[in-house]
Amino acid sequence: MAHIARLAGVSAPTVSKVINGHTGVALDTRQRIEDIIREHGYQRADSGPVSVPIVEILFQALDSLWALEIIRGVEQAIRDRGLAVALTEMQGRQTPGRAWTEQLLTRRPLGVIAVSADLTTRQHAQLRARGIPLVALDPTGEPAHAIPSVGATNWNGGLLAARHLLDLGHRRIAMINGPDSYLCCRARFDGYRAALETAGVDVDPSLVATAPLYVDGGIAAARRLLDRPDRPTAIFTGNDLQALGVYEAARQLGLRIPEDLSVVGFDDLPFVRWSTPALTTVRQPLAEMGAAAATTLLRVTAGEALEHDRVELPTNLVVRHSTAPPPTDTR
Amino acid sequence: MAHIARLAGVSAPTVSKVINGHTGVALDTRQRIEDIIREHGYQRADSGPVSVPIVEILFQALDSLWALEIIRGVEQAIRDRGLAVALTEMQGRQTPGRAWTEQLLTRRPLGVIAVSADLTTRQHAQLRARGIPLVALDPTGEPAHAIPSVGATNWNGGLLAARHLLDLGHRRIAMINGPDSYLCCRARFDGYRAALETAGVDVDPSLVATAPLYVDGGIAAARRLLDRPDRPTAIFTGNDLQALGVYEAARQLGLRIPEDLSVVGFDDLPFVRWSTPALTTVRQPLAEMGAAAATTLLRVTAGEALEHDRVELPTNLVVRHSTAPPPTDTR
Repeated sequence: MAHIARLAGVSAPTVSKVINGHTGVALDTRQRIEDIIREHGYQRADSGPVSVPIVEILFQALDSLWALEIIRGVEQAIRDRGLAVALTEMQGRQTPGRAWTEQLLTRRPLGVIAVSADLTTRQHAQLRARGIPLVALDPTGEPAHAIPSVGATNWNGGLLAARHLLDLGHRRIAMINGPDSYLCCRARFDGYRAALETAGVDVDPSLVATAPLYVDGGIAAARRLLDRPDRPTAIFTGNDLQALGVYEAARQLGLRIPEDLSVVGFDDLPFVRWSTPALTTVRQPLAEMGAAAATTLLRVTAGEALEHDRVELPTNLVVRHSTAPPPTDTR
Repeated sequence: MAHIARLAGVSAPTVSKVINGHTGVALDTRQRIEDIIREHGYQRADSGPVSVPIVEILFQALDSLWALEIIRGVEQAIRDRGLAVALTEMQGRQTPGRAWTEQLLTRRPLGVIAVSADLTTRQHAQLRARGIPLVALDPTGEPAHAIPSVGATNWNGGLLAARHLLDLGHRRIAMINGPDSYLCCRARFDGYRAALETAGVDVDPSLVATAPLYVDGGIAAARRLLDRPDRPTAIFTGNDLQALGVYEAARQLGLRIPEDLSVVGFDDLPFVRWSTPALTTVRQPLAEMGAAAATTLLRVTAGEALEHDRVELPTNLVVRHSTAPPPTDTR
């Protein structure tokens, strides 16, 4: 490397930057160094594979603004380091297939952020062997290996949502939640239950449903809850898409929101403030979560020790117009 | 290469696949070949820089489901080829900065899809020199260089929207459009004008506004149009976000949709069917456009000749509940 630096008339760190794919070297200098490397046959692979200045995000599915908010946060956090974002999705599965690992090793990213994804033990070993660090964002289940993870204070978000409805006078408060296999959904339910129980309200199991975290899931679950004579006066949902499904179910049944039914969502996606009525929801800072995952990844890459394996960013309740006191006859 | 193939006990094409970063080689074979290459010092750079199996998408801003739909389409089209998507955004600018080009050359993607982005002559030259092909999706302006581009039939979409409103009996039909610098927006306006003129209705310039393609832009422009005594009975917008802005402006002014005001959007983003009322809009097949851009890029990469520089995928009108005949007193 010193020899190449001498030939190019630059410092050894500059040569190292070019070899390792880092930025901060003028284009013509970079080209001169690359030409010399080509002529003199420097073996880049000497110290293991060179990583590409990319951070890869692994999603279950790229089908909601939820994903885009996370992407934006990662992109903004790594942009100034000259890094780009790469994406792969698992077509809805929770664990990536074998092809993903093979292709990942070909792409050689600086690191991977796995969103609601579980890697197998073998996949963990493969990434570790290649020196590709991994950070989890909202891991589906308990990670089998100690890897850093980022999330939101889901338990507290569930507590805030249910307390808001209790404060308005509701007692028959249903919850439509995402699948039990998601730890973040379990935490939201536990917060809801804690709010009810500390207010002296028993959780009625027949008012608790699980459904896919999409509009259709919300419609189907809400139809079942609202079709019964002793229907709930409020529904708290596992995410905003399910809440929009509750809106649609209420419309089909001729129920007015918030006069006949209060609804609280979760996420605060950019468009729910424009729904009619504007949705009351628990905001989780998705872009900030993406940025925190990226920053954690860069710290791991730089060999820094982390103080905490798990970081949770704060949630807060955004009160809009989909919640009101329950109808008088049900109080 | 033949020598390495002999040492590894595989065919020369297999070695070539590994050297060029393609998939379809078992992991242990790949590792054996890479070990031999390391020992024997094969110079990968001999035939120019090796590209990374990534297709890069360049966006102005990653701030709408519009972007996510395009990403999904690209991802689905290239997934089976073992390729991943990388993203960069220009923070709202129309032309990427110098840093982008430098970093791109470090990342060495297979090719670039530029979405509503204009590259400079120098940037075109740099990409060409490195053999990185470029495909445009909805180029902002007339591309300065002949590059393949993909879009939707925007002119026809504008025609369909305005015809639908004319057929319902509207005559005072306003248009809130995106900036004039976007060719796709100009085409939508031209279609709207053609529909009006062929129906014998003059375009009233005071009913034509331009605004940023976001909810806030739609609110501001709609407030100006709806505050006047001779307000329009229908508004066609440049995209769905602007249409949601019209919803909000109408709500602020106490106007009912569709009884007092009809609204037609453009895009058909996944959530507008859940707005209240469900939005009538012109659907452009964003995911299919992303897939078409990716397929075009792969064909260019493979050295195929393209029959057409420009391909436009069809738009169609999706009639929902935001359009109705105009109020009786204005007919």
